[in-house]
Amino acid sequence: MNVFIIGVGLIGGSLALDIQKEFTSATVYGIDQNTDHLQKALDLGIIHKKTTNADLINADIVIIAIPVDVSLKVIPEVLDQVSDTCLVLDVGSTKEEICEIIKKHPKRRNFLATHPIAGTEFSGPNAALTGLYKGKTNIICEVEKTAFKLQEKALDIFSKLGMRIRYMDPKSHDKHIAYVSHLSHISSFMLGKTVIEKEKNERDIFDMAGSGFASTVRLAKSSPAMWAPIFQQNKENVIETLEEYIQNLENFKALLEQDNFSAVYAEMENTNHIKQILSGIQEVKLL
Amino acid sequence: MNVFIIGVGLIGGSLALDIQKEFTSATVYGIDQNTDHLQKALDLGIIHKKTTNADLINADIVIIAIPVDVSLKVIPEVLDQVSDTCLVLDVGSTKEEICEIIKKHPKRRNFLATHPIAGTEFSGPNAALTGLYKGKTNIICEVEKTAFKLQEKALDIFSKLGMRIRYMDPKSHDKHIAYVSHLSHISSFMLGKTVIEKEKNERDIFDMAGSGFASTVRLAKSSPAMWAPIFQQNKENVIETLEEYIQNLENFKALLEQDNFSAVYAEMENTNHIKQILSGIQEVKLL
Repeated sequence: MNVFIIGVGLIGGSLALDIQKEFTSATVYGIDQNTDHLQKALDLGIIHKKTTNADLINADIVIIAIPVDVSLKVIPEVLDQVSDTCLVLDVGSTKEEICEIIKKHPKRRNFLATHPIAGTEFSGPNAALTGLYKGKTNIICEVEKTAFKLQEKALDIFSKLGMRIRYMDPKSHDKHIAYVSHLSHISSFMLGKTVIEKEKNERDIFDMAGSGFASTVRLAKSSPAMWAPIFQQNKENVIETLEEYIQNLENFKALLEQDNFSAVYAEMENTNHIKQILSGIQEVKLL
Repeated sequence: MNVFIIGVGLIGGSLALDIQKEFTSATVYGIDQNTDHLQKALDLGIIHKKTTNADLINADIVIIAIPVDVSLKVIPEVLDQVSDTCLVLDVGSTKEEICEIIKKHPKRRNFLATHPIAGTEFSGPNAALTGLYKGKTNIICEVEKTAFKLQEKALDIFSKLGMRIRYMDPKSHDKHIAYVSHLSHISSFMLGKTVIEKEKNERDIFDMAGSGFASTVRLAKSSPAMWAPIFQQNKENVIETLEEYIQNLENFKALLEQDNFSAVYAEMENTNHIKQILSGIQEVKLL
């Protein structure tokens, strides 16, 4: 089995490591615009061989793990080049535009749109981890548009990597993910910004910041090259979540200004409920 | 050495555990309004004995680890009752009102205002942890107002528990801590609220939320009984941080609306800088 990984960073690199482990007869090829990253992936044993798009005809599976704006261009090109029996899947954080752009592609049935909900705030091949996907959710969109045998091939990989599968249409995916992922990245980035702006003396931040702050701003370390295109593709949903978030913050501020601390208490108590909702995630997912 | 812990929850209970470990000859007494918590602390070995305020005259050290609104009443009462050689310290997250309320107390020199920056999102004696304070910062306010010998006694404990000490005036403490702690709690609570409101189908949240979301809303599990009084006492500073945070979110939203994604990119890239600032915290402090 020839597995081609396009984009050998955190997401693609971690997939490569797990695929090597679970499919010992697979040969993992890497393609990356960043030649340093590609060499690094080879040196780290993330891939077996470096290659280029010219070799795509020999691929059994192509996994596209690059920023979602580049995917819009790369996915159709890859589909043009692969064989009729090759499975091409992307793992980006937005699904609507990606599904739209290839909907009339002659090889649409070779493509599967997926979003494994896994990652860390780090990026590049050095950030790749074995077992990153174990116990994580993988959202698959428009499964019915993929050839049955290629669905099977993909599900076999996801299952061996330990992922739970959920099926969803691209529009719902993008809407929901704006709330549970995209918004938290923005809240984290803007929290980091607010504190950096205020606290010019970094030593003071460092000395006073505890684990709570570190946890809340963790996502502010994420890669802008990955996230700016995500916000662009999911702009409408992200703006909607931001408006609701800002409104909730404004309401909370108004309660403080009105000295209505019983309402402040109630706001927090009602939200404590997140404890139960997230109880399953904490253990399996929190890094 | 008789150590009295008033409030045997996460913070007081964790102090009790470490003090028992580092001062093997110490007897640790617990006082708590919540009789279930007090019994639980005894059962868990967090304290050696249950007691009441009537016994405070026998204390060598009293540690007050209760919500900051209750502290305003309890600290002066405790000072009224302890011996002339007893050290009384509080560990609350606000310092200005607490220092103000006891500034003319006849036993002011028996009191030390501290804020160990440590904790988790959980509360009560079950949440108490050994080693919680190791490597953490403890902020001490108005140290010069505490008797020299009692400062020494406190520093000996903090040093054996592995804490780093920083001295700060109460006003600066409350201002800085609003940015690096209080604001992140509000951003987290309101993020949790926004998602809960939107996603009535909790199963969908659970399935799509990953470690990033879990990390960002972790603080939304915190105790309202602890946090409402903190926001009340630090109201002015907290409102200021909230205004700046909301403004940054509004600006980010405007950039999205204007399709100015190079500026969106720059915003994130500039904030990535938090990586270096927090690099020391991640390893020692992130739970």
